[in-house]
Order: sequence, then structure tokens, then C-alpha cells
Amino acid sequence: MLNILFSAKPAAWEEYQAPLLEAFAKVDLNVHLSRDHAPEDVDYIIFAPNGPVRDFRPYTRTKAVMGLWAGVETIVNNETLTQPLCRLVDDSLTDGMVEWVTGHTLRHHLGMDRHILGQDGVWRDDSFPPLAKDRPVTILGIGALGAACGQALHCLGFPVTAWSRSRKSLSNLRCLSGEDGLRAALTGAQIVILLLPQTPRTANILNADRLSLLARGAFIINPGRGPLIDDDALLAALDSGQVAHATLDVFRTEPLPADHPYWSHPHVTVTPHIASTTRPETAAEVIAGNILRGERGAPFLYQVDRTRGY
Amino acid sequence: MLNILFSAKPAAWEEYQAPLLEAFAKVDLNVHLSRDHAPEDVDYIIFAPNGPVRDFRPYTRTKAVMGLWAGVETIVNNETLTQPLCRLVDDSLTDGMVEWVTGHTLRHHLGMDRHILGQDGVWRDDSFPPLAKDRPVTILGIGALGAACGQALHCLGFPVTAWSRSRKSLSNLRCLSGEDGLRAALTGAQIVILLLPQTPRTANILNADRLSLLARGAFIINPGRGPLIDDDALLAALDSGQVAHATLDVFRTEPLPADHPYWSHPHVTVTPHIASTTRPETAAEVIAGNILRGERGAPFLYQVDRTRGY
Repeated sequence: MLNILFSAKPAAWEEYQAPLLEAFAKVDLNVHLSRDHAPEDVDYIIFAPNGPVRDFRPYTRTKAVMGLWAGVETIVNNETLTQPLCRLVDDSLTDGMVEWVTGHTLRHHLGMDRHILGQDGVWRDDSFPPLAKDRPVTILGIGALGAACGQALHCLGFPVTAWSRSRKSLSNLRCLSGEDGLRAALTGAQIVILLLPQTPRTANILNADRLSLLARGAFIINPGRGPLIDDDALLAALDSGQVAHATLDVFRTEPLPADHPYWSHPHVTVTPHIASTTRPETAAEVIAGNILRGERGAPFLYQVDRTRGY
Repeated sequence: MLNILFSAKPAAWEEYQAPLLEAFAKVDLNVHLSRDHAPEDVDYIIFAPNGPVRDFRPYTRTKAVMGLWAGVETIVNNETLTQPLCRLVDDSLTDGMVEWVTGHTLRHHLGMDRHILGQDGVWRDDSFPPLAKDRPVTILGIGALGAACGQALHCLGFPVTAWSRSRKSLSNLRCLSGEDGLRAALTGAQIVILLLPQTPRTANILNADRLSLLARGAFIINPGRGPLIDDDALLAALDSGQVAHATLDVFRTEPLPADHPYWSHPHVTVTPHIASTTRPETAAEVIAGNILRGERGAPFLYQVDRTRGY
């Protein structure tokens, strides 16, 4: 019998309890899933940063902390956490992100807003977009999400450049890395998609200097993390026309305060951190499978590297 | 030397003259391209329905009429036209259509308009769309355009049903045909895309009876032809909530008159026949290649079947 502590906000318990029990039963793991185990009895913690556990020191026999979120920036620097920490990498999270990113890329590529916002009887057939093959897209970040988005955009004909800090290679994508690679990836890009993890090294990665490298009238899509963007630099680039429009799903403060200039800027679309969401059924299966791996002595999947921060 | 007559509106001549001459040179065809050949001297006509030629009888030695448009409904019943008629099937036309259809499918799937139209400081994170795999899409029409759109939507995870009057079979798509197949294709569909040709048999194919088969709150996307839809039935279905939203690119009268109820309906997006457009460079290559086939004695590509009407 494994004692599994569920530490997230109360609403998540309602959503996750049944799917988790079902997923553990499916892989024949005998578990006691609860929100109230004594710390010293806990084998695994299923964890969201907005739950009650903040100090991991009393969890002396805990073998791993299984995150319910893909992003771990609010937990990775918790010095009390010495147990292995695993991010949630869930196909349904990836699928949802691919759909959101592809949809907003096509929205900007096609210039949809002109028609969605222009239902006034005027027949505006005076301009056509280029084909996707003539619209270079750059994705910053080649994790599971960035790679999947890149492949979907490649399928639709976009030439895709993908950048990561360390060198990677993926079929169909022009992969660049390092500081020089970042400049090359941004130079002339018409659509930029931010899917980097939040770390001290990625903060403000899209700053005034780098925004100036883009094709004039570029589009920014940020479903990654708010701090990746220097907000003042982006607002200036929007005002000058260097950036035509930004669709932003994540912010330094969420919900984004109602008086933030992003809400009122005519060339910004704020979306409320909906680009992708964890779906309890599939997340439960991923977590149960990963705990099963641990019990069988296999290495955990998606374990966070504390030195990289993701 | 082949005499080739260009018969379209004057603006098209400006766009097409240079690309056509280049395309003919590329395949080593020696041509005299003009808007003013004597009818009895013309070997081929490059034709748009809005050009000057209406009576084909004087074109006694003309071997084929090469359409500049994908749709031929305004010409196929011209009884003076006894020469072979070829539709324009152009990869760039297909690519543009795939981009437009995929973009608007994702727009409705994701519920983008709620955010595009709701930049008012309210953080609306209370609903998430299903994944594409749980959103059945039906395409009416499995020509070059319908088939390509179906494959792109399949790539993104949508379960795609494709219907055609006569039986077809395509990988990745659930292909249905005939009257019974049409009812099955529409039953429970959440997104319906119209890409049928305009013929007497397809007029009003989406009528009140068939709209009632869809999943409640379905989305209609029409980049095909205006008369495919019974407009009164669609407006009634929009008012009742049976159809949540319709994005319409084509209409019985174009430009759509400013006082048409589609413009003012809150759940209709009118776009001005922009879903895809013929691009002169690629269209010129397709036409030159098809004329070359004729000169070599090969059958023409994309020849219209007068009995079917497309």
C-alpha cells in the first residue's frame, strides 16, 4: 500500500480524485490517496504550487513529487525540496497547446481580426495574405510543447525555425541554439511563438534589442510564461509598428489587472491563461504510470534538472 | 505558333500577362498571347466568366478553354461552349484554402471570438474547449480542396467525415456518399465545412432538415459557393441556437449587400470571398502545363464533365 498525498487547491481534489483512483487501479497499484496523510508516512506527493505543502522537510520517506503543472518555476527553487521533482508532460496538454498555437498563428497569418471586428457591411476584399510557405515562423523553446507545435505548423506549410539554449535537432524544423542562434532565429521572423520555461536566463529574453530583429509588422504569440517578455519593450514595439499584434496568454501577474495597458492596447489580445490546460483523466494516467516506474526501480520520466531549472 | 486568347477582366490581364509568358517560355511553347485574336485563329482560350467572350461558336479551331477559376458554374451551361473546358486546379489555391479552412475551424473550435471581442479587463478563464479529437468535423465535397482540408484537419487530431455524391475513398477520412451518407455525415457534426461545387443538385443542400441533424451549437463554415445554403433556414437555426455561429465567405450576391441580415447577425462572420485566391504565378504554370499536354496529345487535366456540372 502506497500512501499518496494530494496537495493542490480544493477544487482540484474534486476534479482529480476519481480519475487518479481509476488510473492507479488500471496499473494495479494499491494506494491510499488522501489530502491528510502524516508527512512521515507519505510515499509520493501529487503537487500543485497553489496547494498547502510548502515545506518538504517533514516528508522524510517521500520518493518523488509529481507536479500537476507543466511549469515548475514556482517550486524548483524551494530549498526544502530534496526529493525528485517531475513535471507533468501529458499528451493532452501538448495537443491542446498545439491547437491553440496553430489557431492563433493562422489567425494572425490570415488577418482574421479585420473581418471578425469588421462586420459593418463593408466588403474588404482588397488584400490577401501570403501563403504559409512564405511566412517564416520562429518558436523559442524546443521542449515537448515547442517541438509538437513546430511539427503542426510545418504540416501546414510554414517554414519553422526553432531555438533552444542547448543544441537540438528535429526533422522538418530549422533548429538553432545559443546566443548567435537566437539572433539568427529572430532575424526576419514574421511570427514568434514563446514556449520557453521560466528561468533566470529566459527572463526578458524578448527585449527591445531582439524585437528590433523581427520583420517589421511581426506577430508575437506568448503561451509560455509572462516574464519571457520585457513588457515595456513590447508596448513600445507595438506603438511603433515594429510588432503588428501580440496575443498573450500569460503574464507576470495573473489574472492580468484590469488597468494593465495590455487590456486597452488595440494591438494586443489578452487571453486568460487558457492556451492549454491539464485534463484530469490523462494527467492521472501519466502520474500513475510514473509512480509505477518508480516502484519498479525504473528512472522517473520528466524529472526536473535543478541546475537548469526545468 | 499557338494563338492564345486571354478573356478576363482588364485587371487580370495586368496580373497574368507576364506570368503566363514566362510559364509558356519555361515549357518551350511558342505562343502569341493576346486579348484580340480573330476568333477563327484561336487555339486556346484562357477564360474567366467576367471577361468579354460569351459566345464560343466563332472559335471554330479552339482546342480547349482553360478556366482561371476553380468554380465553373457560370459557364458550364453555356450551350455555345462545345470545346473541352478545364477548371483551374492550382496547388497554391488549394494551400490557401487549407490555411483559411483550418484557421477558421480552429477559431470556432477554440472559441477565439470570445477573447478577440472581449478585451475589457475581464479574465474569462471559466471554460476550456474539448480537444480536437473530441470535435467531429464534416466536410461536404471531396474534390482537391475538400480532400486537402480534410487531411490538414486530420493532422491536427480532428475526426473528419467527408461526403461526396459519388463514392470515394481517402485515407484518414471517414468517407460517405449518397443521400443516406449525407444524413449520417451531418448527424452529430459539430463543425461543417462546405466545399461542394455549385450545381442544380447541390443548391440549398444545407437546408432546415439537414441543419436539424447537426449537434446543437454547431459551427458552419462556407468557403464553397453561396447557393449551397438555404439562407432563411440558416438564419432560423442561428436564432434558435441550433447553429452557434456561421462563417460565410461566399454568397448568392457578391459583394453581399450592406443591408443583408448576415452582416448584422451577431453569430455570423461575413468574409469577402477571400478564402482562397488564384495566384498568377502558379496558375500560369498550371495552364501552360495543361496546354502542353494537349499539344502532345495527352488528355487534359481537370476537364469538366458537363453531365455532372463540375
